[in-house]
Amino acid sequence: MFAIWLENQTLSIRENLPIPTPKQGDALIHMLLAGICNTDLELCRGYYPYQGVLGHEFVGQVVEAPGFQEWVGKRVVGDINIACGQCENCQTGRPHHCDRRSTLGIANYDGCFSEFFVLPVKNLYTVPREVPDEMAVFSEPLAAALEIQEQVSIHPDERVLVIGAGRLGLLVAQILALTGCELKVLARRPRSQMILTNYNIPFITENEIQPHKADIVVEATGTPAGFELARLAVRPAGTIVVKSTYKDKVQMDLSSIVVDEIKLVGSRCGPHAAALRLMEKGIIDPRPLIESYFPLGDGLSAFKLASQPGILKVLLKPGQG
Amino acid sequence: MFAIWLENQTLSIRENLPIPTPKQGDALIHMLLAGICNTDLELCRGYYPYQGVLGHEFVGQVVEAPGFQEWVGKRVVGDINIACGQCENCQTGRPHHCDRRSTLGIANYDGCFSEFFVLPVKNLYTVPREVPDEMAVFSEPLAAALEIQEQVSIHPDERVLVIGAGRLGLLVAQILALTGCELKVLARRPRSQMILTNYNIPFITENEIQPHKADIVVEATGTPAGFELARLAVRPAGTIVVKSTYKDKVQMDLSSIVVDEIKLVGSRCGPHAAALRLMEKGIIDPRPLIESYFPLGDGLSAFKLASQPGILKVLLKPGQG
Repeated sequence: MFAIWLENQTLSIRENLPIPTPKQGDALIHMLLAGICNTDLELCRGYYPYQGVLGHEFVGQVVEAPGFQEWVGKRVVGDINIACGQCENCQTGRPHHCDRRSTLGIANYDGCFSEFFVLPVKNLYTVPREVPDEMAVFSEPLAAALEIQEQVSIHPDERVLVIGAGRLGLLVAQILALTGCELKVLARRPRSQMILTNYNIPFITENEIQPHKADIVVEATGTPAGFELARLAVRPAGTIVVKSTYKDKVQMDLSSIVVDEIKLVGSRCGPHAAALRLMEKGIIDPRPLIESYFPLGDGLSAFKLASQPGILKVLLKPGQG
Repeated sequence: MFAIWLENQTLSIRENLPIPTPKQGDALIHMLLAGICNTDLELCRGYYPYQGVLGHEFVGQVVEAPGFQEWVGKRVVGDINIACGQCENCQTGRPHHCDRRSTLGIANYDGCFSEFFVLPVKNLYTVPREVPDEMAVFSEPLAAALEIQEQVSIHPDERVLVIGAGRLGLLVAQILALTGCELKVLARRPRSQMILTNYNIPFITENEIQPHKADIVVEATGTPAGFELARLAVRPAGTIVVKSTYKDKVQMDLSSIVVDEIKLVGSRCGPHAAALRLMEKGIIDPRPLIESYFPLGDGLSAFKLASQPGILKVLLKPGQG
């Protein structure tokens, strides 16, 4: 089968990988669509030493599920954290933080940029009929956006600023707009500005940031400059949600965090069920974020495009191309 | 009158400063006792450019209060933030974060290391008869310790670690022990260990830190090394409360904060009324933290002592020495 392979920070297309064999409790999934995310690009840049098949955003169809026949044929999305179920984090309701976890296409577990891949059945969510593949493939990043509200209460009368209107920032913005809060999005590119306008979400540019006025700022750029802007925008005793990974360490003025009593919240994976619900009900439609489709066999072109500034969601589908 | 003056990072004793004249709404306070805090030492090291009389921890007696005669003669402690009452932060319940605030002995406002000083009447709290001066002088740092619980819910079944058993850490530890949580304090010095033992609070040393097990960590050292230990100790999705100011910027691995979904909370000034209540009821007694007393006129010796490692609370009293 075809798959996109990362090794020593170099991507390649592997054509003759064997189809994996699912163990009891695992599902073999045929990929229908998969999305390239910033984390994939960071992995290519060596943010974390990973070797194997990349990819963690997908919608697929179960083709085998030993011991769980009822899943065969189901269209699914899935939680990317493969948890042990035994450690303290697992047993206290934090399987996403399992001490011994693998992560689909990120750590010790082959990912979904592949014609077939494996994931435990317990990680899967059935995709409702109303949600087409090109929406369902956004389930993982949409769940990540929803994680913000698992961590922070967003009050309807609060001023919320999202820094960055890329792949993730635009999903975060859509989610936060549903709270009724006074939402603004920092968006530099005309294309993102247009998408926000179509979503009826106000955008601002950098020089329109009101210093120290936002109750909550979501940093979705993963750059030190983005973090600086978040720090500028947040009010005293306000909250900065850090939603992106950063390639390098960031110099932080911790004293000012103390003096201004800022709260900083790291935020990662979130609830798929809620993401699917919002798409099923037609409340969220992420499809305007689709940039283009590439077959797996042309995956290197897909990555080349995805790594360019201002490019939104690049999707992969099975096939040689 | 005598006062301890800071100018160009140099301390001096001024002997002939005029007694300040209180405006309507201000109280002229005769200092009874004042405490040297880490922030005073940081100001001497240039952490923030301040020129004037130092000092913000005090208990005093009101000698004049134009328009508020009922305060004259009262024994008081006081909130150190002098707020405008008009800005958005003041009007939305955050006077400690007033946009135009001055801060007693820290920013644009002469402090309490002086025989007499001024503070607005609205900043004052009457000290209950049951609280002697040598306890009341701890009201400000004790309030700062209590601020943690204004910001973070401490559940009785959580594991809480305090990093640092100095002047502030020992007060934080006493406050947190009252929640019933599973509290430990990282304490290197035998003297702090002994004080903790007397308070019936368990201590550990650095090599006894269990990595990633603490639900909440309070960093009370104000050093990058202390922050590193806090990061090591906190569990995924746990909270680090940053309670001290840092002289320099700190290099932070923001990606790991995101991946582990850590919450970072800056914490500064807190509720004096609660601090006084706990001392009035005999629930908290900070007096074992007193290192020694110096007269204002010997203030330079007091600062010399306070700046040495392992030294606890150095108190100042009026007089030439």
